[in-house]
Amino acid sequence: MEPTNNLVNPMLTDFYEITMAYAYWKAGLHEEEAVFDLFFRKNPFQGEFAIYAGLEEEIRLFENFHFADDHIAYLKEQMPQCENGFFDWLKGVDCSKMKIYALEEGTIAFPRVPLIRVQGPMAVGQLLETASLTLTNYPSLMTTNAAKYRLAVGFEKGLVEFGLRRAQGPDGGVSASRYSYMGGFDATSNVLAGYLFGVPIKGTHAHSYVQSFTGIEDLKNRTLVGADGKANDFVKMVLGIREELGFNNTNEGELASFIAYAQAFPKGFLALVDTYDTLKSGVPNFICVALGLLRIGHRPIGVRLDSGDLSYLSRATRRMLIEIGTRTDADLSKFLILASNEINRSVLTSLRQQGHEIDSFGIGTHLVTCDDQPAMGCVYKLVEVKGIPRIKLSQELAKMTIPGKKEAYRLFGEDGYSLLDLMVRVGDKPPQPEKRTLCHHPFDHIKRLYVTPSKVIPLHHCVWDGRRIYPEVPLSERRDYVLNQLRSTREDHLRDINPTPYKVSVSEELYNYVYHLWTEEAPVTELK
Amino acid sequence: MEPTNNLVNPMLTDFYEITMAYAYWKAGLHEEEAVFDLFFRKNPFQGEFAIYAGLEEEIRLFENFHFADDHIAYLKEQMPQCENGFFDWLKGVDCSKMKIYALEEGTIAFPRVPLIRVQGPMAVGQLLETASLTLTNYPSLMTTNAAKYRLAVGFEKGLVEFGLRRAQGPDGGVSASRYSYMGGFDATSNVLAGYLFGVPIKGTHAHSYVQSFTGIEDLKNRTLVGADGKANDFVKMVLGIREELGFNNTNEGELASFIAYAQAFPKGFLALVDTYDTLKSGVPNFICVALGLLRIGHRPIGVRLDSGDLSYLSRATRRMLIEIGTRTDADLSKFLILASNEINRSVLTSLRQQGHEIDSFGIGTHLVTCDDQPAMGCVYKLVEVKGIPRIKLSQELAKMTIPGKKEAYRLFGEDGYSLLDLMVRVGDKPPQPEKRTLCHHPFDHIKRLYVTPSKVIPLHHCVWDGRRIYPEVPLSERRDYVLNQLRSTREDHLRDINPTPYKVSVSEELYNYVYHLWTEEAPVTELK
Repeated sequence: MEPTNNLVNPMLTDFYEITMAYAYWKAGLHEEEAVFDLFFRKNPFQGEFAIYAGLEEEIRLFENFHFADDHIAYLKEQMPQCENGFFDWLKGVDCSKMKIYALEEGTIAFPRVPLIRVQGPMAVGQLLETASLTLTNYPSLMTTNAAKYRLAVGFEKGLVEFGLRRAQGPDGGVSASRYSYMGGFDATSNVLAGYLFGVPIKGTHAHSYVQSFTGIEDLKNRTLVGADGKANDFVKMVLGIREELGFNNTNEGELASFIAYAQAFPKGFLALVDTYDTLKSGVPNFICVALGLLRIGHRPIGVRLDSGDLSYLSRATRRMLIEIGTRTDADLSKFLILASNEINRSVLTSLRQQGHEIDSFGIGTHLVTCDDQPAMGCVYKLVEVKGIPRIKLSQELAKMTIPGKKEAYRLFGEDGYSLLDLMVRVGDKPPQPEKRTLCHHPFDHIKRLYVTPSKVIPLHHCVWDGRRIYPEVPLSERRDYVLNQLRSTREDHLRDINPTPYKVSVSEELYNYVYHLWTEEAPVTELK
Repeated sequence: MEPTNNLVNPMLTDFYEITMAYAYWKAGLHEEEAVFDLFFRKNPFQGEFAIYAGLEEEIRLFENFHFADDHIAYLKEQMPQCENGFFDWLKGVDCSKMKIYALEEGTIAFPRVPLIRVQGPMAVGQLLETASLTLTNYPSLMTTNAAKYRLAVGFEKGLVEFGLRRAQGPDGGVSASRYSYMGGFDATSNVLAGYLFGVPIKGTHAHSYVQSFTGIEDLKNRTLVGADGKANDFVKMVLGIREELGFNNTNEGELASFIAYAQAFPKGFLALVDTYDTLKSGVPNFICVALGLLRIGHRPIGVRLDSGDLSYLSRATRRMLIEIGTRTDADLSKFLILASNEINRSVLTSLRQQGHEIDSFGIGTHLVTCDDQPAMGCVYKLVEVKGIPRIKLSQELAKMTIPGKKEAYRLFGEDGYSLLDLMVRVGDKPPQPEKRTLCHHPFDHIKRLYVTPSKVIPLHHCVWDGRRIYPEVPLSERRDYVLNQLRSTREDHLRDINPTPYKVSVSEELYNYVYHLWTEEAPVTELK
């Protein structure tokens, strides 16, 4: 498969990956077997979990990892002193010698557990660094953010992503729609995301549409065919209802725009009601048109609020729908209220505290730009060369890299919730269900605990072995996978305020191995 | 020209643009002549200016605005109740009937002055909304952010963009590199941005490169050819220098990695010095290799600091270079110090206060995600239909739209600095140099002033008239244009702390016209 975005190719990289590849090539080290871990050190959004995403596009990068002739020509110009043999080698580079392990896309992930492990010739592993990070960071951040919005509103409410126009570029917008859906949103306004990935799309009309009508005289066509197949003078009918209900001061251009919209979408009538005045004009006009539709057998959808005090306006709108519904058609009371306008997680929490009658939320800017933390900090670290572990020592324990080839298991308790993740060295014995296992904190040698898991799931899978192993799965299945995990993870790890850290631990063998390497490598400073 | 990103096509839109287009079509209004303004209401980053960018890609959208057969088939599925005639019309939609005016790309822009004015059939104008916003918001935000970094470090220091791996997706990364350069950066690490737009690219090596060497024995090749064409045992030479200088406790793997890098790039040696210990290992190892290079006639570039206290480390590094330079080769003292690691505008300010010896900054995450305001709030508003102005009234004055077709002029004073922007109605007489002109605040009828400009520049140009009028200009020229404007705008408008608002005004005719329309349209609420 081709990458969704044509900008994803081997040139999507930092120049130093290529200068390093040259230095390796020049030193004859470019084909040495190396292992790199891609992971993050800190959960985003001051939370205690993240969701890993981006693997499908990553695999497509591997599938198409070839420098084109034009690429090579450009690089030769940029590196005029480099030998031709390197460019010949570079021209032949692909991922056929690489072996790549990863978490399944959509897996809840925690700090330090590798999301991806890349094995193969050192220079090729290096060339994959930047794009692998770019293809992981934003998708994972976005999916995590979407899941946090889903958790904030609960599983029952509707959530629609509206952010395309404010996203960081076209691909930012398309990725935002794709990964919002994967993270638990129901739909998007983004047509391209619907077309490419099957995300359900939603949309009604804008203020400009309402403004473009000045009065009933703009309506060239007056009829609408009812569910019984008969044509009605719909304009006359709506004006009659307006008269009956006494809504004579509503904006007539707005009323005309609603009538025209109902004529276009008799089975999909959802009206934006805040162009002039939500309660004095928008909702009354909606009610007139909605009652007209009900009268001829069509079922309208509801209203959209896009400004003002959403708590108050939604409650006042519901009251008006119920009140007029009791006098006219009881169905009116049940119509959907969709709210949008600068909604973020705090607004959702505040709305819940104030009480509201909103059924569905449209969320844009804050969701898609992830404005409370617009970057995920994944890193890509060398952990082994020629079978020998590599460490980058750091003054900060938290920044230490765990050397060597590792794989992780998720251990579950009797209640079905996950207990902790355990990393072991590849080749060591994995933890077994119903068997007592000693789990170490990765850095703190006092923190240890025994776990007897009811269920053990391996987290890492080979997704690439010279060719794609990872199956292409419909996005809706990935979404189900995410939602199921959110339901089987303890609420205290997921909540926004003071969440409990999830335990990521290492086996006794791995702990001892790492500890031994560290004490061997770290110099003891001498004070004189 | 094709859009740089294959995701830019008419499907990159909110679904409501298409449902509205259908409603217009159904009501027979889709071909009505309409005018839309794209503008912003508030400058980003709590500042008092923005830079408009994104026009080149916007023009490419217009050039390629055709729905493909697959697109139409998908939309038919999504809108099963809509008439076939609409899809026939949609299939034929292009920008051949559109006329589009815009600021020149790279123009300093202020609130309420339209960045783009779109004229043509209403439904087509509507279909262009979302993509036009997406293609303007992030580029303008990014260029503005880059310019603010440039202003923060001054025009002399080096600025390199390093953000690809943390950007919001591949296109976010490529756009960040492109528009950082336009906004005043010198170079990028992003190879693809170099390849596509000619942005100068820079890069050296990563920690993983240093770590991959364990000792001198990793160096299979010991020679390096000097400027005189003669081969030297470079390893022996460097080890000799190390001995002479008494740097016997530096990390030997790091030293080997530097030697290998110098062998690969004898004329481009820039070493990352913080893998093990900046002052005890990295800088001493750099000095040994750099002196070796100098001895055989090559000129190294310098060091890169990527962690720790950058002020302290840069000063200590410079001291060490000067001190050893006086004993060995004076050139050592002048080498470049490049610093990176989570640098944002506040860090730059703080570094300046503390004193530092950094020549060039590598800036990533904070720059490319624009984390202090990750979205620009451009809007796209209907201002006229069939020659009749359209208003969306708002409770907030600042949210009022100025109706009708407008064009803007920038008025300059005798000192060469810009004084204010003046909007007039299209067709009204533009302001003239040396002629006294009355300028109104757009909303506040007390605020007026007379200006006698020395120079008047029209800001709006026709960039599209059924076909491209806007010329393709190399990115480096756009960058010069931005930098020149930064130099001809008063510093108090540009500064970060308490900047002075720049005046955006309207002519007397426009003020009276708008005021008349508002009082006519706005209902007077009656208290009972």
